[in-house]
Amino acid sequence: MSELTLHAEKLDAEDELASLRDRFVLDDAVYLDGNSLGALPAHVPGRLADVVRREWGELRIRSWEESGWWTAPERVGDRIAPLVGAAPGQIVVGDSTSVNVFKALVAAVRMAGDDRDELLVDATTFPTDGYIAASAARLTGRTLRPVTPAEVPGALSRRTAAVLLNHVDYRTGRLHDLPALTAAAHASGALAMWDLCHSAGALPVGLDEHGVDLAVGCTYKYLNGGPGSPAYLYVREELQDRFDSPLPGWNSHAEPFGMSPDYAPAPGAVRGRVGTPDILSLLALEAALDVWDGVSVTAVRAKSLALTDFFLRCVAAYTEPGRVECVTPERHAERGSQIALRCPDAGQVMKRLIARGVVGDFRHPDILRFGFTPLYVGFRDVERAARVLGEELV
Amino acid sequence: MSELTLHAEKLDAEDELASLRDRFVLDDAVYLDGNSLGALPAHVPGRLADVVRREWGELRIRSWEESGWWTAPERVGDRIAPLVGAAPGQIVVGDSTSVNVFKALVAAVRMAGDDRDELLVDATTFPTDGYIAASAARLTGRTLRPVTPAEVPGALSRRTAAVLLNHVDYRTGRLHDLPALTAAAHASGALAMWDLCHSAGALPVGLDEHGVDLAVGCTYKYLNGGPGSPAYLYVREELQDRFDSPLPGWNSHAEPFGMSPDYAPAPGAVRGRVGTPDILSLLALEAALDVWDGVSVTAVRAKSLALTDFFLRCVAAYTEPGRVECVTPERHAERGSQIALRCPDAGQVMKRLIARGVVGDFRHPDILRFGFTPLYVGFRDVERAARVLGEELV
Repeated sequence: MSELTLHAEKLDAEDELASLRDRFVLDDAVYLDGNSLGALPAHVPGRLADVVRREWGELRIRSWEESGWWTAPERVGDRIAPLVGAAPGQIVVGDSTSVNVFKALVAAVRMAGDDRDELLVDATTFPTDGYIAASAARLTGRTLRPVTPAEVPGALSRRTAAVLLNHVDYRTGRLHDLPALTAAAHASGALAMWDLCHSAGALPVGLDEHGVDLAVGCTYKYLNGGPGSPAYLYVREELQDRFDSPLPGWNSHAEPFGMSPDYAPAPGAVRGRVGTPDILSLLALEAALDVWDGVSVTAVRAKSLALTDFFLRCVAAYTEPGRVECVTPERHAERGSQIALRCPDAGQVMKRLIARGVVGDFRHPDILRFGFTPLYVGFRDVERAARVLGEELV
Repeated sequence: MSELTLHAEKLDAEDELASLRDRFVLDDAVYLDGNSLGALPAHVPGRLADVVRREWGELRIRSWEESGWWTAPERVGDRIAPLVGAAPGQIVVGDSTSVNVFKALVAAVRMAGDDRDELLVDATTFPTDGYIAASAARLTGRTLRPVTPAEVPGALSRRTAAVLLNHVDYRTGRLHDLPALTAAAHASGALAMWDLCHSAGALPVGLDEHGVDLAVGCTYKYLNGGPGSPAYLYVREELQDRFDSPLPGWNSHAEPFGMSPDYAPAPGAVRGRVGTPDILSLLALEAALDVWDGVSVTAVRAKSLALTDFFLRCVAAYTEPGRVECVTPERHAERGSQIALRCPDAGQVMKRLIARGVVGDFRHPDILRFGFTPLYVGFRDVERAARVLGEELV
């Protein structure tokens, strides 16, 4: 047995979170794609079967009240809140991340006022945020200015309405400095909006602590909500009364069953709703969030960094120097919960890894992406992944 | 046994669709709320369990390709298409009805051009359409003009960009003249958009035949997709290349995995997508649509009218004259698949009916609403509902 294998065993033995793996359905593969689709929490199938057979099949329409369907978007939002450092009452779950980016950006422009005619958006971001930001700018008559996160402080001005940034870059795994960039936006009078898709559930976010104004995120990566599970929208409490949604559907009305022809927005997080909530997916997500019971995000972050550190060490040991280039920052303060390695034949290499039971993903054109979910990935998994990678890179 | 009971038995015996009831999970209640939430199709729990346990739990990320997740929005759209008289390739499933109304109205304004500065919207419609239309008008600098469907022909002008109407009114059950109103809109050069929430699955719609431009609808009423199941968007084939969505999320990109910073819309129905599709709900809906195998919408419509005719006859027989007022039109050409009865104490009456196993719903301020789903409601159900109603109205 190699030194790294022995060390992996030692790290697993010392891992306080190791037993959480039992809360998931897993097999012999090393699953390093939880940053694309989280694994299935073991109790979700049973809970969803009950939702379908009893709540829908037997209670039917009564479940909107009796089974708590109607209030699920805010209830599930309050389950996500502690994972991203938010007090209750500020997060609503529903729609896709893209739709929530649109709501939040248009609302931000309206809150910022007519003097501020520019939106700054992360040019390195997951593209949908940029596409949606361009649409929000077009519809509100603002100018969209793509910048790298490093350029943000210099680009901020009295013209800036809002800044939309990704907390962790989906491709490189780079973690951006949320406290500093939020403070910089505020110093220029702009609103700070963050996309948490690749950070929530993997590291502390601290939305309230750092005064973030608006945030969105998906729930199917580190939150394990299932394929395409609904996204969420955070609106800081102080801003909720001024949140003027471009999608004022009946579910966000102060009296949704009054069926009034005039729109009157509800107070609080409810204002971020649009249409009828997607109950099956929402309640599958609610059940999935049970895996976080008793889990500290600080401990998750510590393990995440230990996993990625160890992966880098194993890759260095098992791979010919220069065969791959790590594009994820080495500094902990700049690293999310993934490692992205660049190599020219990344697409083919990833196919071979998957065939050998090491599941990461390929991102165009030349990135091997490995996500480390501390709730169910262990150190022996990491050693094996790096070893198989080394063998396939020969 | 009363004459009406005997007649109900005769009608049930002659009903060609009677056996379809076995495709649903039902109990001893008379469920006349399928126009709010359709009953559970019997095979959906098994199919959804497989999606969760095998496709998500075992195949995980591979299912996007291997289980056909990625193409589900258009595949399920093509399952809905024959029910609303559409050729394949024009319907995409996803998001809520409200979000789809927004996409379609903003796209309609853009297609209509700058000279047309007015949107006509059904003033009697389900309120969310009006709220969303007001937002679309505000963001595109158009004027919103609420009119009753009867006023539409007189209100159309060279200023009209688009007309948004409900095919069946959610409150009164009135069926509007889709062919004539669509033709009137076209005669003035406006686009015709229809909300099919209360007609799809209950009666023939004929989108292609009548040249409808845009349509939206939910899938949780007569299509039995489950609570809050995803809605759909129809864009007539000839208009798809000009469909300029205000929600251009990455799923609608011509090359979604190219991750290009520049947006290039996909051709066809895919262009109506936004973010990652909600797979659990989408595949539950796909399974639910199996109940339509071998079922003709014409036969469904014939039974729907027979059910509502018989209900009105039984109500007349069992209820003191003048105790309720029927607000649903008597003429078949103007009637959807529901009967709405007005009485001052409707809220209390509906509570008593539900307690006695006759489930309809109450719509503010004074409407008893009874929906008739021909796939699982029979004539003895109808007689019993009217009899219990008569007893409770004494």
